[in-house]
Amino acid sequence: MTRQELINLIHERQSFLCVGLDVDKNKMPEHLRNEPDGVFLFNKAIIDATIDYTVAYKPNLAFYEAMGIEGLVQLKKTMDYLHSLEKPAFTIADAKRGDIGNTSQQYAKAFLDPNGDFDFDALTIAPYMGADSVQPFTVYEGKWVILLALTSNKGAFDFQFLPVESDKHLFEKVLETSQQWGTADNMMYVVGATKADMLTQVRAIVPDSFLLVPGVGAQGGSLEEVCKYGLTRDCGLLVNSSRGIIYASNGLDFAERAAAEAHKLQQQMALYLKK
Amino acid sequence: MTRQELINLIHERQSFLCVGLDVDKNKMPEHLRNEPDGVFLFNKAIIDATIDYTVAYKPNLAFYEAMGIEGLVQLKKTMDYLHSLEKPAFTIADAKRGDIGNTSQQYAKAFLDPNGDFDFDALTIAPYMGADSVQPFTVYEGKWVILLALTSNKGAFDFQFLPVESDKHLFEKVLETSQQWGTADNMMYVVGATKADMLTQVRAIVPDSFLLVPGVGAQGGSLEEVCKYGLTRDCGLLVNSSRGIIYASNGLDFAERAAAEAHKLQQQMALYLKK
Repeated sequence: MTRQELINLIHERQSFLCVGLDVDKNKMPEHLRNEPDGVFLFNKAIIDATIDYTVAYKPNLAFYEAMGIEGLVQLKKTMDYLHSLEKPAFTIADAKRGDIGNTSQQYAKAFLDPNGDFDFDALTIAPYMGADSVQPFTVYEGKWVILLALTSNKGAFDFQFLPVESDKHLFEKVLETSQQWGTADNMMYVVGATKADMLTQVRAIVPDSFLLVPGVGAQGGSLEEVCKYGLTRDCGLLVNSSRGIIYASNGLDFAERAAAEAHKLQQQMALYLKK
Repeated sequence: MTRQELINLIHERQSFLCVGLDVDKNKMPEHLRNEPDGVFLFNKAIIDATIDYTVAYKPNLAFYEAMGIEGLVQLKKTMDYLHSLEKPAFTIADAKRGDIGNTSQQYAKAFLDPNGDFDFDALTIAPYMGADSVQPFTVYEGKWVILLALTSNKGAFDFQFLPVESDKHLFEKVLETSQQWGTADNMMYVVGATKADMLTQVRAIVPDSFLLVPGVGAQGGSLEEVCKYGLTRDCGLLVNSSRGIIYASNGLDFAERAAAEAHKLQQQMALYLKK
């Protein structure tokens, strides 16, 4: 999906919500836990319930890999289902990959190749290994790399805030250096909602780039703060909620409740988009 | 595998060689490319040919994921085969994972759990997300996290050598800070052979930790240099070679040639171990 298509979708649905499909069998409604294809059926129900309020879906690979090869079969079914829908959605493999150049090429093939098992629109990447670990992801037309800049967890303070080069933090250096590796048309950044006050510094370096913002909801980030400091003329934000939506209930009404939570966020987002 | 078991294995085989099972179908011998289970059969032949000269095997996940779900089936068969052998080997998932705490727990389960599909001894992890992204990997008894410190690629110079805190490089800060997250009994570090002269600085911070050293061979690193600066009383090194061994030939003699290359490295290693 190109940048313009994504922007159009955001305006059409009046939403910049991304639903995190982080499926943990122990948190799924009981009636689906032992069902064959239960994980896919759960995802399908969540997608059907939320797609009118949502522009993106983000499965975190860890949750699928934890179920072994069967977990990846469930992920493939989920992606096949998303691709089969008439209503489009931007799809993000939250995989936090990155390796030496010839190896990153293989990861790009695994997740972004239209002929591969998954055909995601975007993939999250860790920046530690530098340019050649990131660039192989930028060669697929209409596909995206989403580079970790400032993450939403406590551990972010271990290295990301280290001062490097006269008062610049490491995360700012990552934002700055990576400008040479891609453009606002094929590169986004992860900036955690739990650090919304940092968005001013982020926007000073990447005024036009889309930001993928996790941490609203269960992790404590505030949508209002994120919008105040992060919104651009083109929106420029994808705000993720995982647990707050997909586990809004673990009963028979899980999809209904997920829809209600997504709708609530969408209505707030519509107001911010109007401003 | 515990640290003492690994050290014993190194002395027994007089080797600290790790064979990188980075299987690319296009580089495999032609007669195996279209064979069902060709990737597994290739790995099996390489393992059988090299295990007497080798203490560790390191499949890089990217190569398997690039083949889709079928690639992971081939990896599982390879791991099942390794676990079935009487001759032990240390197994490393070169996956470069890492995510917020509750998500890293899922990756740990995916790769290290004895009841999972793979049951690796160790997993490589990127440090950018800090403590809570790494610690979930240290809770499995006899299992290891291998943290990226200094990688073998050009992109390593983008961030890893940035000066942070009075003349310390970022990679040194990673080595230092991570001492609080694990011990020499459950944490190793990746230090690229292409930067062997940096091993003195590395050893000043982690005198006892095992180092996983990629980059000997195809990437240009020198075994002599690595040993000169990196060997400890307990050996403390696992030196990886991938392409130089597994693609020594792409003809019918590939296993024989892989054995010859591994044997050559083992003989050199035996000499360094005696010193």
